[in-house]
Order: sequence, then C-alpha cells, then structure tokens
Amino acid sequence: MVASQPEKIIRVGLRDRAYDIHIGEALLERAGDLLTPHLNRPRVAIVADANAAEAHRSRFERGLAASGVHHDWIILSGGERTKSFAGLEQIVGSLLDLKVERNDLVVAFGGGVIGDAVGFAAGILRRGVRFAQIPTTLLAQVDSSVGGKTGINVAQGKNLVGLFHQPAIVIADIGTLSSLPDREVRAGLAEVVKYAAIDDAPMFDWLEGHAEALLSGDVRARAEAVARCCAKKAAIVAEDEFEAGRRALLNLGHTFGHALEAAAGYDGALLHGEAVAAGMAMAFDYSVSRGFCALEEANRLKALLRRLGLPDGYAATPGIKRTGPDAATAEMLFSAMLQDKKVVTGKLTLILARAVGGAFIDQTAARDELIRFLKACGAA
Amino acid sequence: MVASQPEKIIRVGLRDRAYDIHIGEALLERAGDLLTPHLNRPRVAIVADANAAEAHRSRFERGLAASGVHHDWIILSGGERTKSFAGLEQIVGSLLDLKVERNDLVVAFGGGVIGDAVGFAAGILRRGVRFAQIPTTLLAQVDSSVGGKTGINVAQGKNLVGLFHQPAIVIADIGTLSSLPDREVRAGLAEVVKYAAIDDAPMFDWLEGHAEALLSGDVRARAEAVARCCAKKAAIVAEDEFEAGRRALLNLGHTFGHALEAAAGYDGALLHGEAVAAGMAMAFDYSVSRGFCALEEANRLKALLRRLGLPDGYAATPGIKRTGPDAATAEMLFSAMLQDKKVVTGKLTLILARAVGGAFIDQTAARDELIRFLKACGAA
Repeated sequence: MVASQPEKIIRVGLRDRAYDIHIGEALLERAGDLLTPHLNRPRVAIVADANAAEAHRSRFERGLAASGVHHDWIILSGGERTKSFAGLEQIVGSLLDLKVERNDLVVAFGGGVIGDAVGFAAGILRRGVRFAQIPTTLLAQVDSSVGGKTGINVAQGKNLVGLFHQPAIVIADIGTLSSLPDREVRAGLAEVVKYAAIDDAPMFDWLEGHAEALLSGDVRARAEAVARCCAKKAAIVAEDEFEAGRRALLNLGHTFGHALEAAAGYDGALLHGEAVAAGMAMAFDYSVSRGFCALEEANRLKALLRRLGLPDGYAATPGIKRTGPDAATAEMLFSAMLQDKKVVTGKLTLILARAVGGAFIDQTAARDELIRFLKACGAA
Repeated sequence: MVASQPEKIIRVGLRDRAYDIHIGEALLERAGDLLTPHLNRPRVAIVADANAAEAHRSRFERGLAASGVHHDWIILSGGERTKSFAGLEQIVGSLLDLKVERNDLVVAFGGGVIGDAVGFAAGILRRGVRFAQIPTTLLAQVDSSVGGKTGINVAQGKNLVGLFHQPAIVIADIGTLSSLPDREVRAGLAEVVKYAAIDDAPMFDWLEGHAEALLSGDVRARAEAVARCCAKKAAIVAEDEFEAGRRALLNLGHTFGHALEAAAGYDGALLHGEAVAAGMAMAFDYSVSRGFCALEEANRLKALLRRLGLPDGYAATPGIKRTGPDAATAEMLFSAMLQDKKVVTGKLTLILARAVGGAFIDQTAARDELIRFLKACGAA
C-alpha cells in the first residue's frame, strides 16, 4: 500500500458562511466523519451523476456507513443538459420526494455540472438548505466546487440563472480523478492554467515543469495543483464574494469561452474547460492586438495549452460549425458575449492580460473592433 | 377632487438590505420619482399580471414618464399557474430577452402571485438583480410584498421552492384596490385578521369595528389596515429575517391552509386568503381541542371571518372534493401538512393560539391526534 499524502485543509473565510476545503487521497472513506459535524440528523441525500456514482459509490457508501450516516441516492445522467430548468425541476422534485427538510444536508457528488445544478437546487429548496460539494472531476475540484457560484444554462447563455450559495464543506478526493477520461483531465487543467495566468507567474513556471506529471496521473502533482488553485480561489472569494471587483479576474477566458460554448450548442462536443482554454488564448491574442501584451506572452500561454492537449484558439476549438448556413458568425459570437453577466449598461467587461500572470479587468472594448478580431480569428 | 390621505412610509430595518414601504393614494402617478433613487440607468422592466396591467397601466406609465424612466412590459396571465417552474422559466427568459442587466431593477406589478414569482425570478437572474414590489391587491399589500419571501409551487406543495430576496422598495397604492373583485378583497382581509389574531387584540377590536368599512372600500380604513399590517410585518422581519424563530408566527393558518390549497388543486377554486381564513379557524379549533384555548375565542375569530365573507373552517372551504373516489382524506391533508417547510426531523411546527391575539409556536402535535381532528372537521 502506498502511503497517502497528508490531507490539506483550506479555509474559505466568509464569516458566518465560512467553510473548509479538504484535499487528499482516500477522503471518501472518511466522508461520514467529515460530514457528521454538519448534520442535524445522521442522513444525507446525495445527488450524483451516473459516472461518478458508478466509479466511486462503494467507497463513499463505506465512508458514510462507518459513521452511521444514512443516505439516499438521486442519480442523474449528467451532462450539460442537467444544467437546465428541466434538470433543476427534476432535482428539486426528487429531493422533496425524499422529504429533505430545511435543516438537512444535500450532497452534490460529481463534476461541475452536478455541483452547479445541485447547489442551485439546494439554494432554492424550501428557500435554502445547506449542501456539501464532493467534486469528482479535476475541473470541479479546482474551480466550480469552491466559491458558491451555482446555476443553470438557458437559451440566452450559460450560467445566466443561478445563485450565490456557499457549500458547508468541500471534499476533494484526488483518488476520484484516476477514473476520469483523459479529455476531462485536460479540460480541468485549463482552469489550473487560468489561475496561474491571472496573477501567478511562478505557478505558471511550475505548470510548465509538471505538465506531463499532471497529465499522466501523478497524485502528488495533482494534489499540489488542486491545493494551489483552491487556495487562490478561497482568497479571492473571501475578498469579493459577490464579484463586485477582483473576483471577475477568475473569468479570464470565460467571456470568449461562453460564446464558444453557445456556438457549439452545449451538446458535449465542446467541454467547458476546452472553451476556457480557447477563450484564454483569444483573450491573450486580443490583448496583443490591442497593444496591451507582448506576442511572446500569448505564445507562451498557447504553447502550454497545446502541451496539455487543449485548444489554443478559435481555429482549434472543437464543436463549432465553421461553414454552411448555420456557421458561427462573428456577430453571433459577439451577441453571445453581450449576454455575459458582467455586462453593465451595455458595456462588455473583458479580462485581458499584460503578460502571463498579469491579467486585468477592461471595459474599453468596442463592438466593431471585437467583431473584426473575431473575424480575424476565423469566425464567419 | 378629494384630498388624499398623507403617504405613510414604513422602514424595514434590515441593515444593508433595508427598504421602505410607501403606502398611500395616487402613488403610481409618482412611481418614477419613487423608483429613480434605485435605478442605475433610467429604465425598468415591469412584469405584471394582465388584470393589474389593464386596470392601472396608464397611471403607472404616466408616473414613469414624468421622471423620464423608460420601461418595458412583460404581461402574464397571472393566476397560481404563474407560480410554477414553467412560469419562472418564462419570466426569466423574457427578462433576458430584454437584456436586463445585473444592476437593473425589475418591477413586480400585480398580486401576490406576481410578487412571489417575479421576486424569485429577479433573485436568480444573473445570480440576483434587485426588484421593486408594486402590489395591487390587498393580500399582496398587507403580506406577500413585504419580507422578501419569494417562491413557486410544485407538485409536492405550495411555496416549497424559492428564495429570501428582499425588494429594494415597496409601493402600495391603495387606489389600486378599488378595481379588485369583492372576493379578492375578502381574501386579503383574511391576512389582515391574521396579524391581529397573532398578537394584537386591540387591532382585532378595531377590525370588528371596521369590517364593513373595509369591505365597502373606505380608503381611509384600508390605508390604516395596510399600514398596521406592514408595520407589524416589518418589525417581525427585521427581528427574524430568515424565520429562525418568531417570524414563524406569521404562518398562523398557513399549515392547515396549504393543505387545503393542495387538496383544492391550485386551480383558482380556492383563493390563498380563503385557505388562510379556513386554516386559522382550524388552528383555533385545534387549539380548543388540545385545551390551549377557550371555545369563545375560537368563536370570536370565526364570527369575524364570517362577517368578512370568509370560510370559517373546513366545511365552508370552497374547492375541496368531499365525496367520491378523489375526495380529500384526512391522511392526504396530513401528508400535505408534512411537506410544510417548517417540518424538522419529521415533526410538524404548528402555530396555535391561547386566545385571539395570543398565538404561539407548537411542536407537540401527534400524527394520530391530528388525523382524528381532520376527520372531526369533515375530511374523509
């Protein structure tokens, strides 16, 4: 038996809504212990996606049984379609059928889709019940499970409907990542790169030195990456819970990325992390075109993305129709960007960069110039 | 021209979420003035029910135009069906189509259904935009527009899904009540009686003295009733925003009432206020049966309800199937009561009474005893 790395605990300092992120191996086997301090009665309702349930159910059930915590499973097919009004209604209805009460705890068990949708459902069930995040994908562990953003997608765009609802605890068991398809690991690494690209050049160096270890499943490297990302996110969230300022930096790659996802149609052809990777590359390229950023910085970012098997711009983004009558046009992409939640009095807020590790908030982008940029990227 | 009563302003003291309730005549004509301090740009999106829009649209538009506030209307058919996932999705989609932004203000214009559904929609649109309540029914003015409870109904019960989302301002124009059908006025008076029955015997005396004035449309009496109720609710909400304690008293009549509404099927055959009236009578009768309350107190409550044209118990409740294969049974009613949001570890929280003006929170009700009581009331 290989000795486990010691568990890391990161506190998200939000006064009466503060909580801990536990990061380590074999945490599912201790889940009952970790959850019990948050339980009003020894019972949880678990909402899981089918993949996570299949891969990790027995370990989790053992961990709950060890502490005498009863449980019910609600297993969803998962996939981006769960993040819809229909998915939300299904989750809420299932939780009510289980007679989940206001003081109970709901567990979101799976990837970012499950965390976002279940966190939202918990936030509106009986006007709010507490929930725990047990993220089982890299993307969810480094990003979506921390910070309290929950939500669903609608026809007008991604995550346009939701809530700030902080979890009571986050349990990131690195062991769950070993069952992930390579493509999902790569998609998660896009968010890891994002944290470094925002304001942490030394972390970017570290990623360049550990790209292959992270891809190949090195548990120590993955735990280190998850812990670094969570610590950075916890600090930003504690400073700016409702994204009045600095938290917006975490959207690096996301405004372009959301437009790519809208163009791809949320059918799984384009993963969120892939969209964020391509979106980051576009944000850097756009920063270069505006004269904010040196070309070498954009190229350095794109080189790391390619090493991680991620799209390095619009042309490399999977799932986008590029020709024919329903090809994505620059106008369509721009319109999707305008549905971003950060739009104020019609003005786009973009996260741009002066360098790798030097992102900043910009509100000076003009429509025509962006349309030209999108066309230069290859949009019809 | 008749001189208006002076406007009354009641502050709901919730620190950074504090807001004012404006009560008076001809406030719609001043709506632009009242809303402008809350606007980031001179534009509002109004979500209204068709009745309210038809009756008061021109007065409201005049009031907005006088202050240069642009507006868009979203007009819904109204009715309890608006308080559903489908209704919520429709409202959210319409607001997004209007490109409502995070710093904009949404106006809920209509009765309690509109206030509850639109407040909820605003609370989840782009993870929360501010909203104004302009209640146009007595029920909404005295109760649902104040206090930040928003929500929709689901198959499992009423208001089981929603949020606490406080409005930025409440504008209660008493003049809007003159176009209300008598039945809706009576339903609103049920909530007025509730406030007095909870803890204000002098107000109950006042209601006994002004029942006919309130029914016949006396503006001074109605303004007085609305102001008294709002002041009481504001005080309770400021003390206990999230219903950890005392705020539960406001549910007098509501646990029984919600079960009656579930049995009636939300098709308009039973109005919420009527259910609350019958539910209050049942809560008092049950209190008598438990030995908490003198029979004369229950009879005094029921006498006032009858004078106001309201059901005074289960037998008088409209819309309930009493015979045949789909007749409401005591078990069905009890099961609907158990879906109440106040249920904790399977125990019902009931609001009972020692006297008119002497309500209290009780958690000692036993299943079998309640079933017997419901059968004694006439349930199958």
